[in-house]
Amino acid sequence: MRRMPAAPSVSNSITVRLELAARATAVSELTTAIERSGGLVTGLDVTASGPSRLRVDVTAAARDSSHADEIVEAMRAVEGVQIGKVSDRTFLVHLGGKLKIESKVPIRNRDDLSLIYTPGVARICTAIAENPDDARRLTIKRNTVAVVTDGSAVLGLGNLGPLAALPVMEGKAALFKRFADIDAFPICLDTQDTDEIVAAVKAIAPVFAGINLEDISAPRCFEVEARLREELDIPVFHDDQHGTAIVALAALRNALRCVHKALPDVRIVMSGAGAAGTAILKLLLKAGARDVVVADFHGVVHADREDIVDNGHDNLRWIASHTNERGLTGTLREALAGADVFIGVSAPHILTGEDIETMAPGAIVFAMANPEPEVDPAEAARHAAVVATGRSDFANQINNVLAFPGVFRGLLDAASTSVTDDVLLAAADALAGVVTDDQLNPAYIVPSVFHPDVTKVVAAAVEAAALRAKEAAAGAAGAEAGSEVVPIEA
Amino acid sequence: MRRMPAAPSVSNSITVRLELAARATAVSELTTAIERSGGLVTGLDVTASGPSRLRVDVTAAARDSSHADEIVEAMRAVEGVQIGKVSDRTFLVHLGGKLKIESKVPIRNRDDLSLIYTPGVARICTAIAENPDDARRLTIKRNTVAVVTDGSAVLGLGNLGPLAALPVMEGKAALFKRFADIDAFPICLDTQDTDEIVAAVKAIAPVFAGINLEDISAPRCFEVEARLREELDIPVFHDDQHGTAIVALAALRNALRCVHKALPDVRIVMSGAGAAGTAILKLLLKAGARDVVVADFHGVVHADREDIVDNGHDNLRWIASHTNERGLTGTLREALAGADVFIGVSAPHILTGEDIETMAPGAIVFAMANPEPEVDPAEAARHAAVVATGRSDFANQINNVLAFPGVFRGLLDAASTSVTDDVLLAAADALAGVVTDDQLNPAYIVPSVFHPDVTKVVAAAVEAAALRAKEAAAGAAGAEAGSEVVPIEA
Repeated sequence: MRRMPAAPSVSNSITVRLELAARATAVSELTTAIERSGGLVTGLDVTASGPSRLRVDVTAAARDSSHADEIVEAMRAVEGVQIGKVSDRTFLVHLGGKLKIESKVPIRNRDDLSLIYTPGVARICTAIAENPDDARRLTIKRNTVAVVTDGSAVLGLGNLGPLAALPVMEGKAALFKRFADIDAFPICLDTQDTDEIVAAVKAIAPVFAGINLEDISAPRCFEVEARLREELDIPVFHDDQHGTAIVALAALRNALRCVHKALPDVRIVMSGAGAAGTAILKLLLKAGARDVVVADFHGVVHADREDIVDNGHDNLRWIASHTNERGLTGTLREALAGADVFIGVSAPHILTGEDIETMAPGAIVFAMANPEPEVDPAEAARHAAVVATGRSDFANQINNVLAFPGVFRGLLDAASTSVTDDVLLAAADALAGVVTDDQLNPAYIVPSVFHPDVTKVVAAAVEAAALRAKEAAAGAAGAEAGSEVVPIEA
Repeated sequence: MRRMPAAPSVSNSITVRLELAARATAVSELTTAIERSGGLVTGLDVTASGPSRLRVDVTAAARDSSHADEIVEAMRAVEGVQIGKVSDRTFLVHLGGKLKIESKVPIRNRDDLSLIYTPGVARICTAIAENPDDARRLTIKRNTVAVVTDGSAVLGLGNLGPLAALPVMEGKAALFKRFADIDAFPICLDTQDTDEIVAAVKAIAPVFAGINLEDISAPRCFEVEARLREELDIPVFHDDQHGTAIVALAALRNALRCVHKALPDVRIVMSGAGAAGTAILKLLLKAGARDVVVADFHGVVHADREDIVDNGHDNLRWIASHTNERGLTGTLREALAGADVFIGVSAPHILTGEDIETMAPGAIVFAMANPEPEVDPAEAARHAAVVATGRSDFANQINNVLAFPGVFRGLLDAASTSVTDDVLLAAADALAGVVTDDQLNPAYIVPSVFHPDVTKVVAAAVEAAALRAKEAAAGAAGAEAGSEVVPIEA
């Protein structure tokens, strides 16, 4: 199968400081050399000039690091060029990290000190000691989320550990602030033991109003999330599971609108039974899907499969007993024939255009393996009605950034103590609804991550659903206690 | 003994929105009423005006909350006044907490996203995985400190727990940023078990370059700090111990200069054997003090004291065996006779002017119990040559803010893995040296916390000492391994 050629990318940019002879053609020779070697010039500045020499900073996008080296050599080969410093733009941006912590209050003089520190702060401490709920009013707990990882599943890179995971967690925190005005702090745990992870997060919980789990490998992530949800009184949300599920469901709802099919009626085939796959499956079932078959590395998941019978993980058993009513066995390829929907969160290049061709008319294909999808999207688009991936260089990017900022904004604004499935469903429906009927088409089933309405629409729906969940829980507690149901005040 | 009257304080300020009749004398009647009830008007704004009524916001400082109520009633009694909203200025400043987390990098478009998040960030993760030391260059670890408490000794308020401690930790973090440009994050632990505290801090350590322990009660704080120092490869510093010790030693060096005495020659009597007292004692001994007697709640600490023989804590035994060579027993008062220096970090009102009178000529008195010192400073000043307290309304405020920002700035800049006594001594000496010979006098033995040179002078000395300590450690390790000593490159 044809591997998709990587295009030069801004994320592989270099900035080169060089000097060149001041010929009239000097600069164009330089840019031509860059382009001939497949690079993309994204910026050029003449920073100094003399009678015979120019100093130039040129920024170019490359395909990857070795391509960047080729581009530098191509520049060096231009007559009269002297290469000075070569800087990797991505590395430059990361110097010293991507976050800073600032005081919201000026500290100019002793009066300011006495308000924000001793002795004034003592009265705030006393107030919270007398009424712990006041912490949501008088401290950063109101608006702060921990982004927690153990570094066991960093992006697609595997178990890099907590220190190497930190740049991702910083980036996540930056996105929380940019899209939802949430203060998020990275917590990279120096343990991969489930008990120790749970104990550590419990210990640090007082400062936070929510926990975002990130890049923790399956199947430990299921137990970590479940136990933390049980022990903490703040919401716990593993974005790799539920953020992906929310966006996938929203995209599916809109794709189904395009092809005029209904969720309960369609045959869905999934590839991938890890964190994302399990969460997507569960949310689809909650949303009304009735015919789902899941395949993993060993083929279609069914209750009699040897590895599942012998020593399958809990979640594989769960999948086996909640899917595949028709009792299919065999390969993903075989299961795909006649299916209406394919959702992949698995591995690259496991399907071809011919496989997509076996699907039902009006097929929907979400090939979300990252960075290389399960099937070439261009190939898939020749046979399917709607195609989506996780990539930013194709239409319909299924990107978690469309969900987690709004979800947490809503949870925090509701002072929620938990995350329920209704909250996830509400988020997915709200997100789908951002694409209006007259905007909807097979190349636009999810909004852009920079669409200005996404966070507030999702947040409003989540806040409402979270408040309803709180009332229901209070009502149930009241009923158990035999007392009258008192509605929670917002 | 006369209790010192509390003055109205900005930390007990109220802002009152009110309407009053628009008489020519209206505003002065209002301010007179405030002042007659002992309040201090610090601000007044006419925010709206009509033919017969004015709307006014007036801010006044009170002695405490009940005095604030009296002031409001005094205002209400002025003819034609209608009180609207009364806001506590300290509470207002704390709404939503005092910290925010910001991205250092703009996220305007997809290019920015691809640099700070996927796919660009993946290369940063890989770089750190290959070379963990790069985390200090490429992540927030370069400049970030955790402010860690279990809420067991919040200011002078006792065991309020982690949530009520949060405003203090936020304030501490704000001070780190204001004085040392350090990013500090509050960690309030939901456990007071020593093992669990150590495990939690170990677990979260990867993100940080230093740990500041705060408001953890003695004697657990000694074990927590010692165990964390052993287990972590970043510096761990309990400010209530060592920050206090550094500033006290700096102040003492300067006070001794005023009275022309030398540290090894003076008789020092201390009151208080808790966290601060123990740390001050240890630093004084390291600095060359030779004659120190410590008293606690039960009187002078000596090796045969019943409670110490029977079941004294480790640090009391340590004190007993390292002080009081003359074998004094009895009370603090008795030990004080003929002493050159008194340092109190204990309880209020345990000494009188007469007790100070029994000290040697040129006596130095540091009465640091907070908020009420061991002895009335004005009384003490009638008999002692130099007097200092922890209070901001007397000369010579011994305030930890003079130490911890510069100490951590230096430790972080040295990429230090530990805190040694040499670092503490260097900090104290540098701090003392900020007060020049021609500035030094009995009413000015420590600089103001807002003195612009304090942090950088202390940081430079700490960085140099920390680097020497690293070289020495590397040299020792090299010697053990039998290899040549290689200096560490800064």
